[in-house]
Amino acid sequence: MSELTVKAEKLDAGDELAAKRTEFVLDGPEGAVYLDGNSLGALPVAVPGRVADVVGRQWGEMRIRSWTESGWWTAPERIGDRIAPLVGAAAGQIVVGDSTSVNVFKALVGAVRLAQENDPGRDEILVDATTFPTDGYIAGSAARMTGCALRPVEPSEAPGALGERTAAVLLNHVDYRTGRLHDLPSLTAAVHAAGAYAVWDLCHSAGALPVGLDEHGVDLAVGCTYKYLNGGPGSPAYLYVRADLQDRFDSPLPGWNSHAEPFGMRSDYTPAEGAVRGRVGTPDILSMLALEAALEVWDGVTVEAVRAKSLALTDFFLECVGEYVPEGRVECLTPLPHEERGSQVALRCADAGPVMQRLIGRGVVGDFRHPDVLRFGFTPLYVGFADVERAARVLAEELG
Amino acid sequence: MSELTVKAEKLDAGDELAAKRTEFVLDGPEGAVYLDGNSLGALPVAVPGRVADVVGRQWGEMRIRSWTESGWWTAPERIGDRIAPLVGAAAGQIVVGDSTSVNVFKALVGAVRLAQENDPGRDEILVDATTFPTDGYIAGSAARMTGCALRPVEPSEAPGALGERTAAVLLNHVDYRTGRLHDLPSLTAAVHAAGAYAVWDLCHSAGALPVGLDEHGVDLAVGCTYKYLNGGPGSPAYLYVRADLQDRFDSPLPGWNSHAEPFGMRSDYTPAEGAVRGRVGTPDILSMLALEAALEVWDGVTVEAVRAKSLALTDFFLECVGEYVPEGRVECLTPLPHEERGSQVALRCADAGPVMQRLIGRGVVGDFRHPDVLRFGFTPLYVGFADVERAARVLAEELG
Repeated sequence: MSELTVKAEKLDAGDELAAKRTEFVLDGPEGAVYLDGNSLGALPVAVPGRVADVVGRQWGEMRIRSWTESGWWTAPERIGDRIAPLVGAAAGQIVVGDSTSVNVFKALVGAVRLAQENDPGRDEILVDATTFPTDGYIAGSAARMTGCALRPVEPSEAPGALGERTAAVLLNHVDYRTGRLHDLPSLTAAVHAAGAYAVWDLCHSAGALPVGLDEHGVDLAVGCTYKYLNGGPGSPAYLYVRADLQDRFDSPLPGWNSHAEPFGMRSDYTPAEGAVRGRVGTPDILSMLALEAALEVWDGVTVEAVRAKSLALTDFFLECVGEYVPEGRVECLTPLPHEERGSQVALRCADAGPVMQRLIGRGVVGDFRHPDVLRFGFTPLYVGFADVERAARVLAEELG
Repeated sequence: MSELTVKAEKLDAGDELAAKRTEFVLDGPEGAVYLDGNSLGALPVAVPGRVADVVGRQWGEMRIRSWTESGWWTAPERIGDRIAPLVGAAAGQIVVGDSTSVNVFKALVGAVRLAQENDPGRDEILVDATTFPTDGYIAGSAARMTGCALRPVEPSEAPGALGERTAAVLLNHVDYRTGRLHDLPSLTAAVHAAGAYAVWDLCHSAGALPVGLDEHGVDLAVGCTYKYLNGGPGSPAYLYVRADLQDRFDSPLPGWNSHAEPFGMRSDYTPAEGAVRGRVGTPDILSMLALEAALEVWDGVTVEAVRAKSLALTDFFLECVGEYVPEGRVECLTPLPHEERGSQVALRCADAGPVMQRLIGRGVVGDFRHPDVLRFGFTPLYVGFADVERAARVLAEELG
């Protein structure tokens, strides 16, 4: 037994979240070390039974009555309230529905309109130049459709790029490629000091680390639910609009679900009050209620405990990689300081594509990001320290 | 046994679609006559098992590999091709995903851009004044964001309202309230004669009657899948873009799923060729694959056979209502000529709300539309003539 194997055992023995692992389906025929929960979270044990009930009883037997009697109609805001504490938001500010891309469009157009209501001269959107591409594409469309210019900037350079023309700024809390954690409090404060509105994409932070939306005065935020929230493939995303901005939030997608009186079937649009204003069309019930069941794994868990374990996992992975992998064979793209690290480790190596294929063949599942990045995500609710040691050891063997 | 009961038996005996009923879950504890399939289609028998497999095996065991190995990634266009023959479209023109409202936005903004590319002076959108409200609200946003004026018109008056300024026209194939079937071929021809683009909402026609998108040269179309296509609550909608317009289709929601190389993670947006250009974000897999299973009920069924039965069902319902319900107690809003009738019957009566409550209490499920409409939908794949006779009889008793 190596020293690191012994250390892994000790760390697992002291892990207060260890029991949560039993709430996920992990030990199937694959027997894998699953370090891809930042792409698709593992299946929570509670989900299959819930989905079977939603399909068989709620849809199959109760049919249309379920819109009221099974709570379908109010699911977007009810599940939004379930996500709220995980991102530091009080109730009544989040609705679930649509994809992340669609929510980026709502949030960014909404932010520009808020800014232009105060000052019609604001005609520029700043966007994270290193962002996940869809945010940049959608920001381009939001800019075009609101008459704004789009200006890509490195997040750390955003404060210097802010000015009188800035309407809105779209930033990622954690970079999807490198795992870099951006400084949400200070960047939000800088955006506000310039009189602009801050929109944050939480896809790679929600469920992995504290976000503090309310505490830091974030204006609008979006995130997906299929990574650290384990909602399932393509599960619906969410939109946060800060309570005191909701009255002025002017959605570019004013569907009937966001109407003050949706069943009034009125030809004039009167927006609903509150978070519900972020809804659009008929909510996607099967996926949404699967997500609701998946969120039950958070009962009794604090985001702070998750963050502590996440840092311990990535620290230990870096330690094992340092020990096992020959010097210079990989380059770590993820920042070492805790305050700059998300819940993943990205390693650059020239042959990352074939290396990841071999790792997956040996039961260590991460993913490859074009052109040369090995990406390993650490979901504290179900990844243990023995997994981490094994992953680093197999990686070293495949790189050797 | 009354004369109409005998007639119902005969009609059921001669119904070539009668056996399809066994492919749906209908005889639960409710024992209802379900005439609300135009709001939420009944559960097809194939769905629960498929969903259980998608959740338990594809997500739970294969996890991230399912994006390629279980065909998740290509589901939007594959299922689009499954819907295509039901609406008279050749393959490669439909993608499934997002809500109807979101697709109306894509289609209408796309149509305006096509028109303005030909002639920048076109700055007016015509919209069906009697439309389902969400189409009107979204059309208002599309108009606002493309610098157009929005002009509501009765569909029958659309030809007279068309002109040099018309960019796009958004019409409903079947009116959600009255069940009136609009003349898609002639209205589309009139829109084209004026140099504008036609967008059709097929929510209340797809799966109930022939649409003929290709035959009639429709430009863009959208529809939901949870009514006559039985996809389940809030199942994803679809977008049709005619093949020869796809190169010029310029989506207002250019998410990463519509990129020519989605996994290239490029910061510049290059739209994909073909129907895929209508995709946006990560597809909602659970709901989408439930829909795919639901569409299997169409194997061996022609839309023409469905239409013939639909008209026979609504004719027979009107005959039974005429026989059983006292003259003047209800007013039929649905047109009597077959060429103007969808697959529903709308009856106006002053106390429609409480009457529908009583009907539901007696196992005849339709729905109430504000302020005074009883709406009965007839899904030919699972509604029989005995159901129709019973519904009319119970209605007469409750109105009596």
